[in-house]
Amino acid sequence: MLVFILNAGSSSLKYQLMNPVNKKVFAQGLCERIGIDGVLKHEFGEKELEMKIDMPTHKEAIESVLSTLTNGEGKVIDSINDIEAIGHRAVHGGEEFSGSVLVTEKVIETMRRLIPLAPLHNPANIMGMEICQELMPGKPNVAVFDTAFHQTMPDYAYMYALPYEQYTKHAIRKYGFHGTSHFFVSNEARQMLDKKHNTRIIVCHLGNGSSVSAVLDGKSIDTSMGLTPVQGLMMGTRAGDVGAGALQYMMSQEGLTIDEALNVMNKKSGIVGISGKSSDLREVLDGAAAGDDRCRLAIDMIAYKIKHYVGAYAAALDGVDAICFTGGIGENAALIREKVCAGLDFMGVVIDPVKNNKRSKEARDIATPASSGRIFVIPTNEEYVIANDTYKVVTTTGN
Amino acid sequence: MLVFILNAGSSSLKYQLMNPVNKKVFAQGLCERIGIDGVLKHEFGEKELEMKIDMPTHKEAIESVLSTLTNGEGKVIDSINDIEAIGHRAVHGGEEFSGSVLVTEKVIETMRRLIPLAPLHNPANIMGMEICQELMPGKPNVAVFDTAFHQTMPDYAYMYALPYEQYTKHAIRKYGFHGTSHFFVSNEARQMLDKKHNTRIIVCHLGNGSSVSAVLDGKSIDTSMGLTPVQGLMMGTRAGDVGAGALQYMMSQEGLTIDEALNVMNKKSGIVGISGKSSDLREVLDGAAAGDDRCRLAIDMIAYKIKHYVGAYAAALDGVDAICFTGGIGENAALIREKVCAGLDFMGVVIDPVKNNKRSKEARDIATPASSGRIFVIPTNEEYVIANDTYKVVTTTGN
Repeated sequence: MLVFILNAGSSSLKYQLMNPVNKKVFAQGLCERIGIDGVLKHEFGEKELEMKIDMPTHKEAIESVLSTLTNGEGKVIDSINDIEAIGHRAVHGGEEFSGSVLVTEKVIETMRRLIPLAPLHNPANIMGMEICQELMPGKPNVAVFDTAFHQTMPDYAYMYALPYEQYTKHAIRKYGFHGTSHFFVSNEARQMLDKKHNTRIIVCHLGNGSSVSAVLDGKSIDTSMGLTPVQGLMMGTRAGDVGAGALQYMMSQEGLTIDEALNVMNKKSGIVGISGKSSDLREVLDGAAAGDDRCRLAIDMIAYKIKHYVGAYAAALDGVDAICFTGGIGENAALIREKVCAGLDFMGVVIDPVKNNKRSKEARDIATPASSGRIFVIPTNEEYVIANDTYKVVTTTGN
Repeated sequence: MLVFILNAGSSSLKYQLMNPVNKKVFAQGLCERIGIDGVLKHEFGEKELEMKIDMPTHKEAIESVLSTLTNGEGKVIDSINDIEAIGHRAVHGGEEFSGSVLVTEKVIETMRRLIPLAPLHNPANIMGMEICQELMPGKPNVAVFDTAFHQTMPDYAYMYALPYEQYTKHAIRKYGFHGTSHFFVSNEARQMLDKKHNTRIIVCHLGNGSSVSAVLDGKSIDTSMGLTPVQGLMMGTRAGDVGAGALQYMMSQEGLTIDEALNVMNKKSGIVGISGKSSDLREVLDGAAAGDDRCRLAIDMIAYKIKHYVGAYAAALDGVDAICFTGGIGENAALIREKVCAGLDFMGVVIDPVKNNKRSKEARDIATPASSGRIFVIPTNEEYVIANDTYKVVTTTGN
């Protein structure tokens, strides 16, 4: 089955064309600067194209992608009729969606109702769905939610200790994100483990956005992001956990509104805020190696906060069978992995420094042979989860 | 040495008269409703007095206390000249005070500069100091800061991942509170442990306000409260950790200013917010026993959040030699201790249910004999720390 995977953001979109049955990727790419001018980056096989194309709206962007897939140098299929289904990354499913669903009028209506919870993401996601319905009439669209995997959290993990009415009136609670990645990586880890029952897995998804999850027997029981993605770990530009008193104090000292303060916490904090250099960890690692103390601090803070959640989630899981690292930082930054895993022998987890420092694109185990808990580095594949969920939903519902 | 211990709040004050050398307490009590009308509760020996006394300001309140200590039914000393020094509980010492100090003009000036960090507490503390200087001229006053014990935290633990300038310009960072209690309890625990080096102790101070600390070799390396006490654990009326996105969303949905939202988070959240019943855990335990699901949820949330920090701090300490429970809840609520310690055998900590359920006023070990990490219940004694610090400062500085 050929699935077109779409991840529509507010001014950009990512796509991939994949057969989830054999995991073959035909092409993938990215539209940027939608509504400004428009750039399309298209990868197929070993080749890459970059084109300037006018994209006043997401509709022209998606039309350009479909045209590039079927015509000219970047062509990989004969006709858009070859696309059998469309899988959409959808950000916020609230408490309404605990799995992937066929996009119907009712689904779109529910997603619209959830816009206040994800004011930037859900409108873009809905737009992507409606444009695909228009451009590829009759083809099934499937929504795969970032929040769905975490819907198995118990109430005592997802509730904030705010007045209870904030939950019943406004659905204020932790939802968590990166669900497709946490699902994919924890599922791979379960297959890599010898034990098959009571599997206690901690997934550290460390990219530009980062989160940790605790996964018991394949079910998420806790995760570090909250109602929105600004909570939890220190990220590229996001602050992660900050006390409400500190936020209030920053607002009063700087004369900021709450929206301005959240903008600071979302865009000017985290790695770039502490290092003053870059939101890209690689530059900060270089800075630290060259003796920059704020870069050193940024690295120590990132690692310490991940370790905080690893410890907390080991307690939540009553122990740990595997700690998994994924995402750009998790897969590549050996120093972060080393710092997170240092001193975890009390919970039976010991990293092998030689294995940790070996570079590879493959899923691998970097714990010592004697370590009772494993440490896995597992490249994530969110697109595969979206394509495969799409395949499963479409074949199950008989479309 | 006879030390008068004063803990001055905005509309109340607590006092104690103690000899720190032999730990003898002569009297203790409480003034409430200062500025409204005034009530003085005075305990001495086994007796208790309650008197309505007009207290337009803290000055009349302290005068009433000194008069009660030296005259009439509650008399325990002949003259206020018998008081050799005054020890003040001071809330916020910022980065300026890492230990207790003799109160000088300069100290008061620094505390005044720190008022923005503790707008309710520091002014009351300063007022208490100035009134004691006036009423007991020539007697040394010592300030014992709630934040001082945590000044040993490393930067990667105390920094928020906000823009670095928020720290350099406004001193926005984690400070932590309950320092005298965390010091006292961790120090007692070190004496109860067989090992004397590399002692890794987690202190759960659980009262109406609650915090956890990680104490390595007698030094605090992390704690759950932040710039202000609203961060960290779920408390009687405080929310503890809440994502900034959730806070922003609550404000927009309810039309609240940040100050109003913080008021909700400080006074209407936590145990009372979730249970809808009371901020007093005992009532909520009764409610849960009677089948109230929101009381059940409140209890599960309290315990789960403490367990979160126990796991996180075990990771920060590279293992744990003792988990200590103190404060009204920590000393008395066996169910909370049981839930926090359940499933911690992976870190070598196993609770003995029989010992846990035995009531006592003494410091005790409730772990099983085979447990490699101990679990201590240790009644806290913040007044003793204040009196003893006062004694040490006064005798060292030769006053």
